[in-house]
Amino acid sequence: MTSEEIYDQVYAMGRMGRRAALELSLLSAERKSAILLAMASSVRTNARLILEANARDLEAADARGIKGSMRERLVLNGERVEAIAAGIEQVSGLPDPVGEQLDLVTRPNGIQIEKVRVPIGVIGIIYESRPNVTSDAAVLCLKSGNATILRGGSEAISSNMALAKALQEGGETEGLPEGAIQLVPFTDRESVRVLAGMGEYLDVIIPRGGEGLIKAVVSMAVMPVIKHYDGICHAFVDRDADQEQAVAIIDDGKTQKCSGCNALETVLVDGEIAVDFLPKLSERLEMRGVEIRGCEVTCGILRGAVLACDEDWSTEYLDLVVSVKVVDSIEEAIEHVNHYGSHHSDVIITRSDERAERFMSMVDSACVYHNVSTRFSDGEEFGFGAEIGISTDKLHARGPMGLVELTSYQYRIRGDGQLKDGGRQVGL
Amino acid sequence: MTSEEIYDQVYAMGRMGRRAALELSLLSAERKSAILLAMASSVRTNARLILEANARDLEAADARGIKGSMRERLVLNGERVEAIAAGIEQVSGLPDPVGEQLDLVTRPNGIQIEKVRVPIGVIGIIYESRPNVTSDAAVLCLKSGNATILRGGSEAISSNMALAKALQEGGETEGLPEGAIQLVPFTDRESVRVLAGMGEYLDVIIPRGGEGLIKAVVSMAVMPVIKHYDGICHAFVDRDADQEQAVAIIDDGKTQKCSGCNALETVLVDGEIAVDFLPKLSERLEMRGVEIRGCEVTCGILRGAVLACDEDWSTEYLDLVVSVKVVDSIEEAIEHVNHYGSHHSDVIITRSDERAERFMSMVDSACVYHNVSTRFSDGEEFGFGAEIGISTDKLHARGPMGLVELTSYQYRIRGDGQLKDGGRQVGL
Repeated sequence: MTSEEIYDQVYAMGRMGRRAALELSLLSAERKSAILLAMASSVRTNARLILEANARDLEAADARGIKGSMRERLVLNGERVEAIAAGIEQVSGLPDPVGEQLDLVTRPNGIQIEKVRVPIGVIGIIYESRPNVTSDAAVLCLKSGNATILRGGSEAISSNMALAKALQEGGETEGLPEGAIQLVPFTDRESVRVLAGMGEYLDVIIPRGGEGLIKAVVSMAVMPVIKHYDGICHAFVDRDADQEQAVAIIDDGKTQKCSGCNALETVLVDGEIAVDFLPKLSERLEMRGVEIRGCEVTCGILRGAVLACDEDWSTEYLDLVVSVKVVDSIEEAIEHVNHYGSHHSDVIITRSDERAERFMSMVDSACVYHNVSTRFSDGEEFGFGAEIGISTDKLHARGPMGLVELTSYQYRIRGDGQLKDGGRQVGL
Repeated sequence: MTSEEIYDQVYAMGRMGRRAALELSLLSAERKSAILLAMASSVRTNARLILEANARDLEAADARGIKGSMRERLVLNGERVEAIAAGIEQVSGLPDPVGEQLDLVTRPNGIQIEKVRVPIGVIGIIYESRPNVTSDAAVLCLKSGNATILRGGSEAISSNMALAKALQEGGETEGLPEGAIQLVPFTDRESVRVLAGMGEYLDVIIPRGGEGLIKAVVSMAVMPVIKHYDGICHAFVDRDADQEQAVAIIDDGKTQKCSGCNALETVLVDGEIAVDFLPKLSERLEMRGVEIRGCEVTCGILRGAVLACDEDWSTEYLDLVVSVKVVDSIEEAIEHVNHYGSHHSDVIITRSDERAERFMSMVDSACVYHNVSTRFSDGEEFGFGAEIGISTDKLHARGPMGLVELTSYQYRIRGDGQLKDGGRQVGL
């Protein structure tokens, strides 16, 4: 494949996507639901083909010596394919966000301005090894009336192709427009570069993957990119905290699923209670097998703690490791969170409502919590039904992104001949 | 100035801006209004200094031979300075968008999820020659709780410095945080490059200016950019149009102020009425001194029309020129608008509500009109009180951008110790 051939083929997909987006924007909620149900059923029917394709990906991965969680992410099995199908059915039943009237105003001159929720258009999804993203992303975009152009990683290319084919074939039986779900058949860097430059055909790119992928897409993209960066989440244990509750919230945040982006990475402890609180925390974390990397004060109190280095405060461990720092004040805690955090999810544990409100209004993160585990930063937990990710951006979508965040709006203005300058004379 | 010195100084401004943004986010609506009124009064008090600075800019412009509308944009006079001050007072009186509760949900587990409107943070404004943008942009950003880093063009640097100083000095008397409004003292390209790469300190960049400026910013920026591209706006005259109304709407759209981005550039006419309608349109436009560039059919009907070339369909004339095309159907009109338009503002003139709805739902533009002049695409006309521009993007803000579009939101979650996995055993 030459660069030129990749360019031509990806641009052809862009034109198809744009055409499909127009058709999709006009589909009724019922039609979209029917399409989704047919897609779910097609995934089930094609399970064997999907698993065979996945076996080819796994074989190639094994040949390249891919191991551990990298390999684990690639794996599909009967249960996971069923989960994909069930996920599609669930999205099918969610309320359709498109067409909602967001506002309706009649201006003094009689024009009526309606603000209506509409699909964004064509959404590019660039992702790495998890094949289920093929379905999750395409389905959420479809439900919200958008066309998708998917570009997955090379490790999962066979699985992705099989899944995309099942979705397309199933959907077409119920009227899925051609080009509504497309998978880029190239997995080299060049195809990402072409997508990122295709401003007239892609309205937004959502990269799903590590920081390297996101940064590469941002540096190339001419269209908006919705970023889902790391979660470097903090718990601040205030002097007025219910200490038992604090231990439980930190335990849950750190150990209930430490690979989640909403898992805790750093605990900040008010100096007034550090000597009392830290041993209780340490005891619980030790039971869970969590390594503590502490500041000097922490290490003075907890003899077993390792001394944290500067890098620890900005590391997303995604592992059974936590950094712990003793701070002098809530102000120092807020400053630390805003400086080292990733503006994702942070919690204060305190019985003081006044201090809780101060923390929440000054911490510049998508989700700020008072006496609740940060693990609730999740579209499902927020009641969105499903999520495409958790945005660490502040524009368009912040925090958990559901169907509504996959839409835009349009102003429709109706009148009977209103002119900006109605009093102007014509001619002499 | 070396690149390194520019880098250091712009980064220092970034850090200041970030600190100021936190302080601004906590200011009450009353405090912000008081600051704005003090700023307006300071602009009046400093009018002489501002005009002297402007005279230096004009002298330099004259020395470089800058003429016509380029020079006109630079000019300040007593009236324009008063308009700037009055504009600030007007913004001061607008409702404060910050702190609005957008949603409040209690989940089955008892956690309460509040969605609150918050400022975006630090906004970069990169603009060209108009010195009034210094004030307009800073003031709207301030009212919505944001810090601004302004980077104006070299032609207006003295005027911009004088205006920014007046705003800062006035604001400080009422508690404007230091760093809330900053003007980059450099006007070379390097300073734009540094701003565009300063992802940790700038949350968004809004370029105000020509396509060249916007494209340059987009290509360099690592943070979101809200784009205000050209307005290539269309009127489609349907076979069921009230033809007199159509002539009036096109006249208003083209000639009431042809330099506006919401002015009409292209007229599409249903083939069924072209022979009847085009002479009426031509007669009116001729009286206004508008040149018609027509498709072949148009030129067959209107002998005076110049034959349009391909480029005409995607040109924003901003002048007394209009391109006219006869189309076979509403579908062809929609396709033309979506292909050649800039997704800004387009109108259908028809007595058929059914066709109007079809046009409005299929034209992929920020503002779609039925029997109304496109010149109403404007924050003031929409009732926003003021606008920072008209976004041709689909994400975050689409169409006229007022104060609300200069905000983001944050989720504040309150509970009493809820855990993701409350039933998990500790130990053993």
